Amino acid sequence: MTDIMTQFETSPNRYVVASDGVKYAYRKLGKAGTPPLVCLQHFTGTMDSWDPAVIDALAQNRTVVVFDNAGVGASGGQTPDSVEQMAIDAEAFIGALDLGPVDLLGFSLGGFIAQAMAARGKIAVRKIASVGSAPQGGEEHLLEVVTAAFAQNAADVRLPLFFTASERSQAAGRAFVARGAKRTHERDPESGKEISDAQAKAIIRWCADKTTGHALLKRIAQPTLIVHGSDDTMFPVSNAFEMFKAMSNATLIVYPDSAHGALFQYPEMFSAHVDLFLNA
Amino acid sequence: MTDIMTQFETSPNRYVVASDGVKYAYRKLGKAGTPPLVCLQHFTGTMDSWDPAVIDALAQNRTVVVFDNAGVGASGGQTPDSVEQMAIDAEAFIGALDLGPVDLLGFSLGGFIAQAMAARGKIAVRKIASVGSAPQGGEEHLLEVVTAAFAQNAADVRLPLFFTASERSQAAGRAFVARGAKRTHERDPESGKEISDAQAKAIIRWCADKTTGHALLKRIAQPTLIVHGSDDTMFPVSNAFEMFKAMSNATLIVYPDSAHGALFQYPEMFSAHVDLFLNA
Repeated sequence: MTDIMTQFETSPNRYVVASDGVKYAYRKLGKAGTPPLVCLQHFTGTMDSWDPAVIDALAQNRTVVVFDNAGVGASGGQTPDSVEQMAIDAEAFIGALDLGPVDLLGFSLGGFIAQAMAARGKIAVRKIASVGSAPQGGEEHLLEVVTAAFAQNAADVRLPLFFTASERSQAAGRAFVARGAKRTHERDPESGKEISDAQAKAIIRWCADKTTGHALLKRIAQPTLIVHGSDDTMFPVSNAFEMFKAMSNATLIVYPDSAHGALFQYPEMFSAHVDLFLNA
Repeated sequence: MTDIMTQFETSPNRYVVASDGVKYAYRKLGKAGTPPLVCLQHFTGTMDSWDPAVIDALAQNRTVVVFDNAGVGASGGQTPDSVEQMAIDAEAFIGALDLGPVDLLGFSLGGFIAQAMAARGKIAVRKIASVGSAPQGGEEHLLEVVTAAFAQNAADVRLPLFFTASERSQAAGRAFVARGAKRTHERDPESGKEISDAQAKAIIRWCADKTTGHALLKRIAQPTLIVHGSDDTMFPVSNAFEMFKAMSNATLIVYPDSAHGALFQYPEMFSAHVDLFLNA
């Protein structure tokens, strides 16, 4: 086992062709020896959308794998319009890398995918950290919030999307955007309309299904850390309370004065909380 | 500044006479250099009711002060029947030790007192960790839950009071009770009916006042960590959600399969969370 201690900023793109025939792009860094943490990305996000401060901090104590799911960024294949197919694709990718049991970090849509993967039980998932996520049937305001954020013509649309209007949250947002911009080589292509349309459809369908009584969450036995921002406008914090109450083994953490990108606003605190949870 | 690294189990009782004429008993351990953390105790609890695992862990990085409030344990004076008077008494004790700005750790009734102290603004409070607490007007089931717990004739009433019925929670409860029993010298006298009657009255009055619109919480600007057990029967977890929503700078953490004594069920995780919060 060799350590592969690389900063996320300079971590090279790697590729693997999975059993589904899709060529997946990924980056892998950190330290061998613990279950690897596979990161599942948000709506229209690519590998470059992760916060290097979060990924580097988490990679201090474990292997972290960041990838583009099918049809996104530098990966091949089609962007599915259902969470379940995204879970199937992520499982194919993880299977291709032969990672063994994994921990999952799912942000937003990535949290939906993590739930689906854990409930499907097709691959060995040890623990789940889910951030800014929602249960099936949860409350979403995706299109309104995204439309309103773009209408602001901010320097980066993630400033109004992921952070509150407070000066402190906006300053944290600007620092986050600057961290993410530092990587200059092998950046992923930005997501276009085909990706956003398919993913929006998947998100809206996931939240529209109000009939399940949280059956999927109730199937998840894995220890789960639910993290949310106090003032998330896209998926209100009530989603986190609901997930917490429906799950048998969940820990809930909610940060103050924070919106959808709570993990990027408090990268040190968030990484420390995830680390404690994964090490427990 | 000298370090006073003492295990809580063997930490000697000390005494100070405050400006209110009351002789307060306390124990002080840990490391000089950061704001001291003053611990505010639960209904009928004494210094010996704290978990040595929690106190010792917190004392790794700061001075921790544990004391008996007026009328309780080894302290003199009368047990008040209002939260406000308990806050005034705690302020007199802290003033007598000339501690400078303090952090507060309040458990249950102690969390009410911490809220009152922060809102009163008479002494300098830097940060607050509040566990198993409730806001003014919160939902309490004190008498029913205490009565039902005593009716179980458990080996220790805190097993049904502070832990869930699950085997894992009960095992953690037994370990907690064993940790607390190790101290043999200078144990506090147990609280009698005079103390429990006065404190119960204070708790019930605090929760009966439904008219404040959380005015007190809204006056608290200090960073606050709110910790709660998922299945607290005495003060349901909805109290923690309400406090979190009413406060301007609160972080919320809720643990799984845990009741009123969540901090004693997860002593390592809890101490690590408090440490991260106080160090941030």
